[in-house]
Amino acid sequence: MEMELLEKTVAEIDKLNEEKMAEAKQRLDSLTKPPGSLGKLEEIAIKLAGMSGELYPKVDKKVHIVMAGDHGVVSEGVSAVSQEVTIQMVYNFLNEGAAINVLANQVGVDVTIIDIGVAGELDAEGLIDKKVKLGTDNLAQGPAMDRKEAVASIETGIEVVTEMIENGANLIGTGEMGIGNTTPSSAILAAITDLSLDDTVGFGTGIDDDQLEKKKEIVAQALEVNQPDVNDGLDVLAKVGGLEIGGMAGVMLGAAAANKPVMVDGFISGAAALIAQKIEPKVTDYLIPSHKSVEPGHIRMYEILGLEPMLDMDMRLGEGTGAVLGMNLVESATRIISQMATFEEAQVEH
Amino acid sequence: MEMELLEKTVAEIDKLNEEKMAEAKQRLDSLTKPPGSLGKLEEIAIKLAGMSGELYPKVDKKVHIVMAGDHGVVSEGVSAVSQEVTIQMVYNFLNEGAAINVLANQVGVDVTIIDIGVAGELDAEGLIDKKVKLGTDNLAQGPAMDRKEAVASIETGIEVVTEMIENGANLIGTGEMGIGNTTPSSAILAAITDLSLDDTVGFGTGIDDDQLEKKKEIVAQALEVNQPDVNDGLDVLAKVGGLEIGGMAGVMLGAAAANKPVMVDGFISGAAALIAQKIEPKVTDYLIPSHKSVEPGHIRMYEILGLEPMLDMDMRLGEGTGAVLGMNLVESATRIISQMATFEEAQVEH
Repeated sequence: MEMELLEKTVAEIDKLNEEKMAEAKQRLDSLTKPPGSLGKLEEIAIKLAGMSGELYPKVDKKVHIVMAGDHGVVSEGVSAVSQEVTIQMVYNFLNEGAAINVLANQVGVDVTIIDIGVAGELDAEGLIDKKVKLGTDNLAQGPAMDRKEAVASIETGIEVVTEMIENGANLIGTGEMGIGNTTPSSAILAAITDLSLDDTVGFGTGIDDDQLEKKKEIVAQALEVNQPDVNDGLDVLAKVGGLEIGGMAGVMLGAAAANKPVMVDGFISGAAALIAQKIEPKVTDYLIPSHKSVEPGHIRMYEILGLEPMLDMDMRLGEGTGAVLGMNLVESATRIISQMATFEEAQVEH
Repeated sequence: MEMELLEKTVAEIDKLNEEKMAEAKQRLDSLTKPPGSLGKLEEIAIKLAGMSGELYPKVDKKVHIVMAGDHGVVSEGVSAVSQEVTIQMVYNFLNEGAAINVLANQVGVDVTIIDIGVAGELDAEGLIDKKVKLGTDNLAQGPAMDRKEAVASIETGIEVVTEMIENGANLIGTGEMGIGNTTPSSAILAAITDLSLDDTVGFGTGIDDDQLEKKKEIVAQALEVNQPDVNDGLDVLAKVGGLEIGGMAGVMLGAAAANKPVMVDGFISGAAALIAQKIEPKVTDYLIPSHKSVEPGHIRMYEILGLEPMLDMDMRLGEGTGAVLGMNLVESATRIISQMATFEEAQVEH
C-alpha cells in the first residue's frame, strides 16, 4: 500500500518538453546579447521551459525543506561533534538562528523543518513531525534501516513537497541536518561507483586526519557488511543511507513528478540525488545544481548526475545553504528570458 | 594638475584593518556552524570588516557603473560585430533592455552608464557624458591613447565613483561596453605576464577560428609595436588598453581610497583590475571577485590579483553581469556575520 505512492510518483515523471526548449533557445538567441553568452543562466531558462511547458515560468514562490535525521554510525566516532547537536540545531532552525534561516530570509524563501528521523523526542512549535524512526541503525554493523523504512522516508519527502507545490511552490530547495551524515553519503557514492575511498570520503564537519582514516575504514566496512545492490536505489538507501537522504530523494522525485525545479545542495543532497536517479533517471532533468562543496566526492556526484555546479564557495555546512544561494541564479534565468529586449526591439545589429 | 587626483587617490588607499578582521573571524567562529564552513562568505565578511573598520558594514546601497568606449583596433577585424553596436547597446542600456538592466533590477542596483570614449556623438537622457576621446586609436599600429588621456580615463572613474560614495553607495559594480575590448584586455594580460597567446586570447563575443588566429597576431603586433613598460600601469593602459578599461581601473582605485568594496566582473574588468594593481597593489584588498568567464585568460587574471571567483556560469557577456550576480553573495556575507545566532545564544555544543 505505502509503496504505491512512490511507484505512482515515479510513473508521473515526464521527459522535458523539447519543443518548448527549442522555443526558449530561439527566444534567448533573439535577445540583445551574443548567443549563449549568458551560459548557465540560458541553460536554466531552457530547462525550466522544458519542465513547465511554458516559455516564461515563474519562480516567485520559493520554498526550502530541511530534513533532519540521525545516524547510528556516529557511535563509530566518524563525526567531529556529538549526536545531540542534531536536536540542538533543529531548535536553532526553528528560532531562526542558523545560516539557512539567514540566507533564506535574504531571498524570501520559506523554510520548513521536517523531523524525519531525529534520535530523540522533540516538541517544538513549527517542527513538522514525520519521524520514520529514531535515527538509523549503525550501517557499519548491518543495514541502516529496512526496505520499508527506506520507502517511508522517500514517500515522506514526496508527501511534503507535493503539498507545498499544491500550495503554489514553484522552486524547491533541499537541505538537511544530521550529525554523521557525510558517512552514509560517502557510502552511497562509493557503492555506486568505482571511486576510491580517497575520492569519496572527506573531512565532513571538521574531523582530523586520524578520524578521516577511521571514517574510510567504516565506509569500507559498511559496504562489505551490507553488500548493497547498486542497481537498486532503495536497497542502497536502506543499507548504507539515511532517513533525511531518503526524504530529500523523495522531495526530488515529487518535485519532478509535478514538473517543478528542485535545487541540489551539497554532498548529502547530492547523495539523495544519486538515490533518486537510481530509482528514476529522468529525475535529473528537474534538478538544478547549486554549489560545489569542499567534500572531494561532491564534484563526482555532479558528474554522475550530468550537472555542473554554478557556485564555488568553499562551503561545507549543509542545511541547504548552497541551494538557497543558487535560487537567485534561477530567478535571474527567468528574468533574462522574459525581460530582456530583442535585437529587433532595441534596433541592435547582430 | 589633472595628475593630482590620481596621485591623491592612490595615496589614500589604506591597508586593511587587521584588528577588525581578527574580530570578525572570532565572531564568525562563535556562530552556529563549523568554523570556516561558509567558506568564501566568511572570507568576504572578514575582508569587509578590514575595509570598513566595522564588524557589521552594510551593503544596502549597491550601485553599478557601466563604462562605454570604442576601440580603433576593430578596423583589424578582431570582433564578431561592428563598432556601431557599442552605441546601439548604450541606448539599449538606457532603455533598460539589456541583460545588465534585468539583473540589476533583480538585486535593486542602480545602473549608471558613462560615455567615456564612444566613437560617435550621443545625446540621450540618462547618459553621463565623460568622453575623453572618440574611441582609442588602433593599438596594432601605435599607442591606443596618449598618457594624458590614460590618466583622464582613470580620473573619470575616480570622480564618478567618489560622487556615488558621497551619496551613500557602499558596494560598487564595474562593467563595460565596447566592441573589440577583449583585444586590449588580452594585450594587457599578455604584456604583464609570460603567458602564451593561447592562454591570453579568446573568442570574445564569438569570432571563428580564423579570426582567433588573426586576433592573436594583432595582440602580438600591438606588444611589438608599442613595447609597453610592464612596470608602469599607465604606460600599459595608454599603449595597449582602452578608455573604459582606464575608467574601471579608476572606479576600483577610487572605491579603495574610500574603503569601499568593488566587484570585479569578467575579462575586461579583470584587465582594469590588473592596471589598478600595477598602479597601487593595495587596491586588490578592496576587490571582490565575482564570476569566472569563458575567456581563457580570466582565471589567470584572478591568480595575479590573488582572488578566487565565486561563480562559474560559463558567461562571456560583459556589462558587469557577473559583478551584479555576485553582489547577492556579498550581501549574504554581511547577513551571516550580523544575523546568525552564536553557539552560546542557541545553546548548541561545539
